[in-house]
Amino acid sequence: MSDSSRGSGGPEPNASPLNASPPNGSEPADAGEYAATAGADPGTWLHDLVATLLPPMRSITGDGVRTTLATVARALGPEPALTVHEVPSGTPVLDWTVPREWNVASARLTGPDGKTVVDAADNPLHLLGYSTPVRARLSLDELRPHLFSMPDRPDWVPYRTSYYTENWGFCLTDRQLAALPDGEYDVEIDTTLTAGSLTYGEIVLPGTTDDEFLITTHTCHPAMANDNCSGIATATLLARTLAGLPRRHTFRLLFIPGTIGSITWLARNRDTVGRIRHGLVLTGLGDRSDPTYKRSRRGNAAVDRAAAAALAETGRPHRVVDFSPYGYDERQFCSPGFDLPVGRFGRGQHGDYPQYHTSADDLDFVTPQSLADSFAILLRTIDICERDRIWRNTTPYGEPQLGRRGLYRAIGATMNRQAIEMGLLWVLNLADGTRSLLDIADRADLPFDTVAAAADALAGVDLLSDVTSSDVTSAAPAGARR
Amino acid sequence: MSDSSRGSGGPEPNASPLNASPPNGSEPADAGEYAATAGADPGTWLHDLVATLLPPMRSITGDGVRTTLATVARALGPEPALTVHEVPSGTPVLDWTVPREWNVASARLTGPDGKTVVDAADNPLHLLGYSTPVRARLSLDELRPHLFSMPDRPDWVPYRTSYYTENWGFCLTDRQLAALPDGEYDVEIDTTLTAGSLTYGEIVLPGTTDDEFLITTHTCHPAMANDNCSGIATATLLARTLAGLPRRHTFRLLFIPGTIGSITWLARNRDTVGRIRHGLVLTGLGDRSDPTYKRSRRGNAAVDRAAAAALAETGRPHRVVDFSPYGYDERQFCSPGFDLPVGRFGRGQHGDYPQYHTSADDLDFVTPQSLADSFAILLRTIDICERDRIWRNTTPYGEPQLGRRGLYRAIGATMNRQAIEMGLLWVLNLADGTRSLLDIADRADLPFDTVAAAADALAGVDLLSDVTSSDVTSAAPAGARR
Amino acid sequence: MSDSSRGSGGPEPNASPLNASPPNGSEPADAGEYAATAGADPGTWLHDLVATLLPPMRSITGDGVRTTLATVARALGPEPALTVHEVPSGTPVLDWTVPREWNVASARLTGPDGKTVVDAADNPLHLLGYSTPVRARLSLDELRPHLFSMPDRPDWVPYRTSYYTENWGFCLTDRQLAALPDGEYDVEIDTTLTAGSLTYGEIVLPGTTDDEFLITTHTCHPAMANDNCSGIATATLLARTLAGLPRRHTFRLLFIPGTIGSITWLARNRDTVGRIRHGLVLTGLGDRSDPTYKRSRRGNAAVDRAAAAALAETGRPHRVVDFSPYGYDERQFCSPGFDLPVGRFGRGQHGDYPQYHTSADDLDFVTPQSLADSFAILLRTIDICERDRIWRNTTPYGEPQLGRRGLYRAIGATMNRQAIEMGLLWVLNLADGTRSLLDIADRADLPFDTVAAAADALAGVDLLSDVTSSDVTSAAPAGARR
Repeated sequence: MSDSSRGSGGPEPNASPLNASPPNGSEPADAGEYAATAGADPGTWLHDLVATLLPPMRSITGDGVRTTLATVARALGPEPALTVHEVPSGTPVLDWTVPREWNVASARLTGPDGKTVVDAADNPLHLLGYSTPVRARLSLDELRPHLFSMPDRPDWVPYRTSYYTENWGFCLTDRQLAALPDGEYDVEIDTTLTAGSLTYGEIVLPGTTDDEFLITTHTCHPAMANDNCSGIATATLLARTLAGLPRRHTFRLLFIPGTIGSITWLARNRDTVGRIRHGLVLTGLGDRSDPTYKRSRRGNAAVDRAAAAALAETGRPHRVVDFSPYGYDERQFCSPGFDLPVGRFGRGQHGDYPQYHTSADDLDFVTPQSLADSFAILLRTIDICERDRIWRNTTPYGEPQLGRRGLYRAIGATMNRQAIEMGLLWVLNLADGTRSLLDIADRADLPFDTVAAAADALAGVDLLSDVTSSDVTSAAPAGARR
Repeated sequence: MSDSSRGSGGPEPNASPLNASPPNGSEPADAGEYAATAGADPGTWLHDLVATLLPPMRSITGDGVRTTLATVARALGPEPALTVHEVPSGTPVLDWTVPREWNVASARLTGPDGKTVVDAADNPLHLLGYSTPVRARLSLDELRPHLFSMPDRPDWVPYRTSYYTENWGFCLTDRQLAALPDGEYDVEIDTTLTAGSLTYGEIVLPGTTDDEFLITTHTCHPAMANDNCSGIATATLLARTLAGLPRRHTFRLLFIPGTIGSITWLARNRDTVGRIRHGLVLTGLGDRSDPTYKRSRRGNAAVDRAAAAALAETGRPHRVVDFSPYGYDERQFCSPGFDLPVGRFGRGQHGDYPQYHTSADDLDFVTPQSLADSFAILLRTIDICERDRIWRNTTPYGEPQLGRRGLYRAIGATMNRQAIEMGLLWVLNLADGTRSLLDIADRADLPFDTVAAAADALAGVDLLSDVTSSDVTSAAPAGARR
Repeated sequence: MSDSSRGSGGPEPNASPLNASPPNGSEPADAGEYAATAGADPGTWLHDLVATLLPPMRSITGDGVRTTLATVARALGPEPALTVHEVPSGTPVLDWTVPREWNVASARLTGPDGKTVVDAADNPLHLLGYSTPVRARLSLDELRPHLFSMPDRPDWVPYRTSYYTENWGFCLTDRQLAALPDGEYDVEIDTTLTAGSLTYGEIVLPGTTDDEFLITTHTCHPAMANDNCSGIATATLLARTLAGLPRRHTFRLLFIPGTIGSITWLARNRDTVGRIRHGLVLTGLGDRSDPTYKRSRRGNAAVDRAAAAALAETGRPHRVVDFSPYGYDERQFCSPGFDLPVGRFGRGQHGDYPQYHTSADDLDFVTPQSLADSFAILLRTIDICERDRIWRNTTPYGEPQLGRRGLYRAIGATMNRQAIEMGLLWVLNLADGTRSLLDIADRADLPFDTVAAAADALAGVDLLSDVTSSDVTSAAPAGARR
């Protein structure tokens, strides 16, 4: 844990992520005010959870994943429930096969002098991921092909794996590698690669509709704070927070190993993925770089526009980048057969920062401030998606007579009257059953909230009807659902 | 009347708008030369008519509107006919109801010293529009809530109304208000609010087709020259001028009270508004600011492009602004249920200029030059719409052999030969039954007249056939209609 | 022939265009390497052929065209075959009629002193094209309307014709015209205008599909090197080169008189022009100005994008201009009834350079360097069109597992591994049966070759299937066709 980055006071006991009381108090917040209700200090809560998630050995299968999911479950508290799925090795999943399960009892390299060179117990990164079991005495020359370092970063340990080609190895600093004396080395890698299963976690928070909002994060990377303990922690806090809020969408949160996990989940849920209206892959949310949204393959899905709007509202530097088929699990969700409206949110992108996939991605590399900022932007993105609708003006011939309906009183005093009036007029003019509120806000050049408040007020006096696609409760009065 | 703004000589008797002889001579002009035939001095003619229209009390109903329409009828002369419609109070019109009719016998505020403070006979603006009848003696403090002034413009009288909430009041200069002594004031407002009717005027000029060109202007504003005596005068001169010209479109000109008038007209003509191919709302055409066109909701309707082309051709500063659901009667014509191709033309926009809705919008605020310029741009816009067509090349396989058809002689010597040739080639190449002449002029980057002249010449030798939608005379030879 | 422009050594015997051995050696080159296999010195070969084509009298009909086609046939060698078509005078072709055939025995103007003023035997440009036969003695004043010069270019002879209006005349330098003494002149124009035929040449190189690539050039201009001996020579070398290469498209090369030739060909092939997938009109390929591509009327046809890509790849200044219905035979191919995807490639555009349509468009005006550069860009454009395909990912749900398929070995070592990987991922992600490889290269911002190589590799392991429209061999494995 990095006290220095949390300030001198330290966390309050009830702010601990492993304490069941929700960080945002007991009162469910209004859906329209998500951002304001994520607890007094979500950054510290998240950083604490990152610290708890960091130590265990972890890979795409094995007990490290199970330990991680148990930590998530504890941080969630009694509600919401985390379902843990186990998919047997050898199961065909799309073009792939669930691999053998990998577990690590110990892994140590001992030098000619009998001293430990590296030990996975000190840092899981020291062991090449998916190393086969080995017990051998080798000369330095024989050993060298199995040793991985970063010559340009001599003090960092790289993160390396070999999932689909059998291999073994150790990762160490280049400084340590350069200092290794000739002689005989003892390799003791006590791992198992056996028919077991792939483990992933899933949380479902039912909404008033079957339309789904998917949030996924990868759970396979060991011992790196930003990539991706930050994602696991943030998804956990999102689940806690969303569980306490009214929801139009059904939220589904996945804690899955990268690539093979999303492929496995997609293979098992192929018939129902069409329910996904919005999705976000969460990775690298705690570093100090600017928040970054990567668009879905569709490029202008509602979530793409909501995330862009949420970022723009911050008034601070940020990036919105186009989809490319390189990155994390968005590659699978956005493969052309699925083509789901799933974007990716984070801060530094893979390859942007030198600490990427190294031991330097540590607790100091992520900050409570960045974690809190990412969390707030995510809640705002979700808030906009929750409130975005396609409305139809029920009185489209001429303007309705607004004065007699008391609309200005309905909207209240939080916005200035001119903005309210323009919001009302724009929504009435453009709500023709084809445009969403995001569309209208763009065309009117008004804040989303102004347009959404105007739509709510108009719906409250039956001047709008909801034609949002596949909204199972669309027959109910709009006002009753908020 | 403001002689100073018309020069020392004064108007010629036959140039007066209330004299029946048309300002543009007795010869009907060719449709293609509208702009050149609007009379020797339309600016003075228009300014005179503005002066005549200015004095009477006017509101959304009542005798003031009838007086105004009678002035229009006299200015029109024996032809064309102005039909006056009376729609009873209480008639449901779309989401609205025709209000009670308001008439003013007199309205006077008398001070403690027995002197008149303000009298509507001096300026209709002194009376709050739709004031209920009142006869009372009040202290200054009791009176204050009923007195309206402009603290930031202490010498101007504001224009205020209270159509749909019963109220009464007086408008006066802030300087006058500040000087009012304490004491008892006599309020004498002798108005009636009774079941009567809403009055509007309509002129129909049949064309060779049922396709309609709608021109509307609001008649409800009292005592302001730019907003909107300028619109009433301009619509009047347009009607006179168009009556003397060949017409492809049927022109319909409306003199209607703002908002409730267009709503009433739309309610009564709901089944036939689909004939409207182009429309223009005319407001504020006489002030000194740059001519301004506000696009229809569709944004790229033919009238939007024609107006933009006419403005661009002037080579002078002008504005073309996007639709917004705020402004004048375009709000109703462009409501989503109707979504008619109706834009708005004027100069200063509401809120742009401080004189807006004040006594400073007087005869000096509008100039013959601006009125004439607005009128010329309107005629040019109409001219382009009249001449815009969708043609189909009857010889689309390869280029037709132009040389043997004597086309260059047909077009004549007014354009240079190279421009003519490019016009012919572009029209032949793009006239595939989907593109209008405006489309072709844009793509070819040629003046509209070049393209239109080329199309006329090609149609004259049967190389083009007219496929303009819903042109009821499209079976007739194209040349015969010009 | 202009030895000076080919350097001191002169051409090797086997490099002569009138020698049957192909300039690019006997080994057929791989389609993907067109540009590298056009012979060691295509520029000199082309310049020699331009020199051979230059002297004869030539017009839209007559023996000059036949002589030209015979020269082309000799330059082609035994393969491929050039078919010469003769279309009788009077044949209706679209809106036109094949004109009378024009032949020239001699044409001379003799001065008062008995000395020859101009003689077509010295330069075909001296005779007005399609001059009627005349034998007359005229005063200078009588003669003047029949003499054409260029006052602003006093040393150049203009190129003039009068195909469709009967006339006769001589073209001469303005300096010569100014010096003509008064007196009697003898006009001896021994031409014939008779029922004959219009002559054009056609080469068909069958491909593995019926999809056609049309290449046309005009053969009617006499005695001008750039316009258009350069086009005739370049089309000849393209035919020779393409004959020795594998071809997916069927290539059709036309040697036709301008305008009436393309109209005649289109009239005779109206039922099969739908096979044309790409087309290029070749004109003015040898001058020193930048290479220029003029888009087809469609504007974004595959050939438009391929040519733009080929030009961009040169990294040198070039122009890509929009279609306009003015120019050469693209006017006919892009007439709205046909609307074929035919662009035009050349260097200086008509009217851009003062030498256009004058005696100054001579052998020195074209350079081997420019001819070779134009030829290379054309081959690259053709190469891209040959390789462009629409593929469909056969494993679109999630990413396929690439590692087990040995794809990196399949692509080989000529590209860097990261570019290969991005190419594979982009093709898999976007190959949904609607996008061509040009589309994918644009979206991915990758070189066409990277994307095409990735597609070939993926097709080789059955991860792509070919859905290119109307590919008659699409049932065969994609790999077998390369």
